[in-house]
Amino acid sequence: MTGADLLCDTLLANGIDVCFANPGTSEMHFVAALDRRPRMRCVLGLFEGVVTGAADGYARMRDAPAATLLHLGPGLANGLANLHNARRARTPMVNIVGEHASYHLACDAPLTTDIESLARPMSHWVRRIVSADHVGRDTADAVAAARAAPGQVATLILQADAAWNAPAAAAVVKAAPGAPGAPAKPDPDRVRAAATALRCRRRTVILVSGKAVRADALKALSRIAVASGATLLAQQSNARIERGAGRVAIDRAPYKVEQALQSFAEVEQMILIGATAPVAFFAYPGKPSAMLPPSCQVISLADATTDLGLAIDMLADELGVAADVAPVLSQAARPDRPSGRLTPKALALTLARQMPDNAIVCDESVTSGRGFYGATHGAPPHDFLQLTGGAIGIGLPLAAGAAIACPERKVIALQADGSGMYTVQALWTHARERLDIVTIVCANRRYEILRGELANVGAGAPGRNASRMLDLDDPTLDWVRMANAMGVEAARAETAEELGDLLTSAMPRRGPFVIEAVL
Amino acid sequence: MTGADLLCDTLLANGIDVCFANPGTSEMHFVAALDRRPRMRCVLGLFEGVVTGAADGYARMRDAPAATLLHLGPGLANGLANLHNARRARTPMVNIVGEHASYHLACDAPLTTDIESLARPMSHWVRRIVSADHVGRDTADAVAAARAAPGQVATLILQADAAWNAPAAAAVVKAAPGAPGAPAKPDPDRVRAAATALRCRRRTVILVSGKAVRADALKALSRIAVASGATLLAQQSNARIERGAGRVAIDRAPYKVEQALQSFAEVEQMILIGATAPVAFFAYPGKPSAMLPPSCQVISLADATTDLGLAIDMLADELGVAADVAPVLSQAARPDRPSGRLTPKALALTLARQMPDNAIVCDESVTSGRGFYGATHGAPPHDFLQLTGGAIGIGLPLAAGAAIACPERKVIALQADGSGMYTVQALWTHARERLDIVTIVCANRRYEILRGELANVGAGAPGRNASRMLDLDDPTLDWVRMANAMGVEAARAETAEELGDLLTSAMPRRGPFVIEAVL
Repeated sequence: MTGADLLCDTLLANGIDVCFANPGTSEMHFVAALDRRPRMRCVLGLFEGVVTGAADGYARMRDAPAATLLHLGPGLANGLANLHNARRARTPMVNIVGEHASYHLACDAPLTTDIESLARPMSHWVRRIVSADHVGRDTADAVAAARAAPGQVATLILQADAAWNAPAAAAVVKAAPGAPGAPAKPDPDRVRAAATALRCRRRTVILVSGKAVRADALKALSRIAVASGATLLAQQSNARIERGAGRVAIDRAPYKVEQALQSFAEVEQMILIGATAPVAFFAYPGKPSAMLPPSCQVISLADATTDLGLAIDMLADELGVAADVAPVLSQAARPDRPSGRLTPKALALTLARQMPDNAIVCDESVTSGRGFYGATHGAPPHDFLQLTGGAIGIGLPLAAGAAIACPERKVIALQADGSGMYTVQALWTHARERLDIVTIVCANRRYEILRGELANVGAGAPGRNASRMLDLDDPTLDWVRMANAMGVEAARAETAEELGDLLTSAMPRRGPFVIEAVL
Repeated sequence: MTGADLLCDTLLANGIDVCFANPGTSEMHFVAALDRRPRMRCVLGLFEGVVTGAADGYARMRDAPAATLLHLGPGLANGLANLHNARRARTPMVNIVGEHASYHLACDAPLTTDIESLARPMSHWVRRIVSADHVGRDTADAVAAARAAPGQVATLILQADAAWNAPAAAAVVKAAPGAPGAPAKPDPDRVRAAATALRCRRRTVILVSGKAVRADALKALSRIAVASGATLLAQQSNARIERGAGRVAIDRAPYKVEQALQSFAEVEQMILIGATAPVAFFAYPGKPSAMLPPSCQVISLADATTDLGLAIDMLADELGVAADVAPVLSQAARPDRPSGRLTPKALALTLARQMPDNAIVCDESVTSGRGFYGATHGAPPHDFLQLTGGAIGIGLPLAAGAAIACPERKVIALQADGSGMYTVQALWTHARERLDIVTIVCANRRYEILRGELANVGAGAPGRNASRMLDLDDPTLDWVRMANAMGVEAARAETAEELGDLLTSAMPRRGPFVIEAVL
């Protein structure tokens, strides 16, 4: 029994049985321990951004953490961008980062780095396991930290000698369920304040995110909105929205500053439930950072750490929403089949028409997929997973993790080409694990969002330098060959009809498939 | 004139005219400024690990820094692993990391992170530009920091408002040449101590790295070794060795602990010139971290910040090496053409036979290429660039940067498949910039080095979990399609003859080409 064995057993005893991994020499005792535990499913990513993004997708769908295995500081560094997204999504996750043996650190061997400094900005919780004797306690604490409501990124640094030495006590420690990880009880004073505000009948937005954009919470919220006349709105970006026909259709706060300012211009009060007051994604000269008018009163009913379902129920009770007030639910609706050139709109409509029941949509389509959300309120019920932290390169890994979490459901990765290239290695994991993912690459062959931003700067038409930093068309990326190179079948669509035909054949089959949608 | 304009002008005035980049919205004013300066060559990488690795390769060949342009904390995070390698290589580099406008930071917008915490572990120097008025000074300081001998990773955090505001003074600041960045003068006491040690005729190793493994320094060192009877040895990993026929053949310290311990077992004293005393790359239970016997006396003649050429000349003078002592130079030698199955040895011999004059070899072949070094002492003169920090994923980017630095020279990327996947996006930059790079992917379809390490742990034959974390053969990566997908021509070799034929056609042509060497 090594420290690494105890670490694995502690994870398993606490319900963590999937480990997304890319190991190195310093983690070899952990690999050996994993090898002795076939109950743990080890999923290899060929780059650490795949590993962390997949762990995020898994946990968003399971509402429970997976583990990751990362090799020293550089391996962690490679996974940081998607840890950043996970941190913003409040995804539960336990990262195991290998580290040199304690006595080896003073040698400053080539791979020695300051792992804590790298880990802290993208983790809610960081601890170093300095001895095999601490493995059980530290691992259980990491699991507890990951589970702290609504979820945290917990990073454990596993020194090699703590992994290979025998712990004094080999008893597995179970993370205590409940406190301190359980969601906080809603504050009755805040419930009353929110109810009072809603009764004023001023122009009110209820802005929600986190667990408040799951289907049941949204139904309760919709009843409150109907009863009070308030507008229900989701944050711009959310970890997981349950939506589609028979569920509440909820709009999201606009991404663009002008649109956000306009949409909030008349708002007199905002009630926050698991959300934060809307701010600009980026700063722009002469434009405000806060999207609400200064006069708007902001009332926080419950932050993300609170039991949001209970807070919503308490609010409905406090308001006295009558039993016969019904939520506004989306009617099932399939658009007509579009035809002709493949535009972003045609892409959205084709998908809206052909989405299967109970799909999981991982959206990193950036500009090309902006029409998708509005077009699919009446599509079959589905989960919608977004890029929560703005660090591109999560789409394909997120889809991998979601597919592993929910093997019986079809995953649709709606993927921009520029961001898709960031973690393109994920396609190999799609193939390796035979994941049921249809990836639609929106191939506009440029960083379209940045072309728009450059125009905003007033730089005029892009010259050679700007074009060569914003365009991806020289040479053109061939996504069919790219997918094939990693063992994934693929085809190209250049018209709406071709996309429709490919979806018709791809949706009923199982396993990964890539469609390059040339826009 | 914006702060971003002044930043560009300051870079140009200080001789930095290449910017490896992957920008985002917060850097759009910088992009606009670059666009107004066609003298600056902007090279897009489709992932930041490509950007930083290419800047490393460029600077290693130019002995002068390039700039990088990275998007906020996550963009920096994606580039950190190769910054780690650059830091270990003591590569001069100026990173420009975009940051939100000062007033926007308090909003905690989705992409807000602690950039300093991320930057420090992989940078020698970090500064935040908080105002347009500081751009000139801060940028010049960054260039000076990058140039501080023998080279440093300097990271500038550019707040968006510092980029878009007008600086009070628009005068370009030139980094002062010489102090404090110039190499330190050698210490005469140390020179005398080293000379005294060499005269003792104890069993002595002169361990060298950095600028001491360039051709002229090695010739002077070889004369000292001949005169004193000492053994000349290079560090295990070096930023750039000048080697081949007509140059000094220098062995490198072994990577494996057992081999290193054996090779140093009888050493009584070691003289360090730009090198550090050898330590194990990783710690192993029951094995020492230090590779030298405890009785070995270590004398540091000059560390990396010192003028190593001068230190070596002073040592030769102090020793009184006679004018007629000649260095030991490699004789030109081409091995016979190997045939049959493509083994690592056959690969090394085929390359040794067919390398063109004056090539630049970027080696990230890990296990498969270990035979290359020994087989090419008599190959035509070439530069040999190594993975200095152990963070895999540098080979293809490094080759891109080297090719941009030296467009008239053939670059050979000797690339393992596992590490090649880390930054496979670099192939697109090879195509985009029409770089003269022949990439040989050593396709053994596994993390072979880790298979060996797992065996060392005594774990026995790998089971399912270990195999699925160490093997890359399910599915097989198709490097020909991968390269084609990114616009690079490619072919596969399965025998030594096929590899030879492909090299025969690839070497004289210009532009990128990938050979998948199936081992």
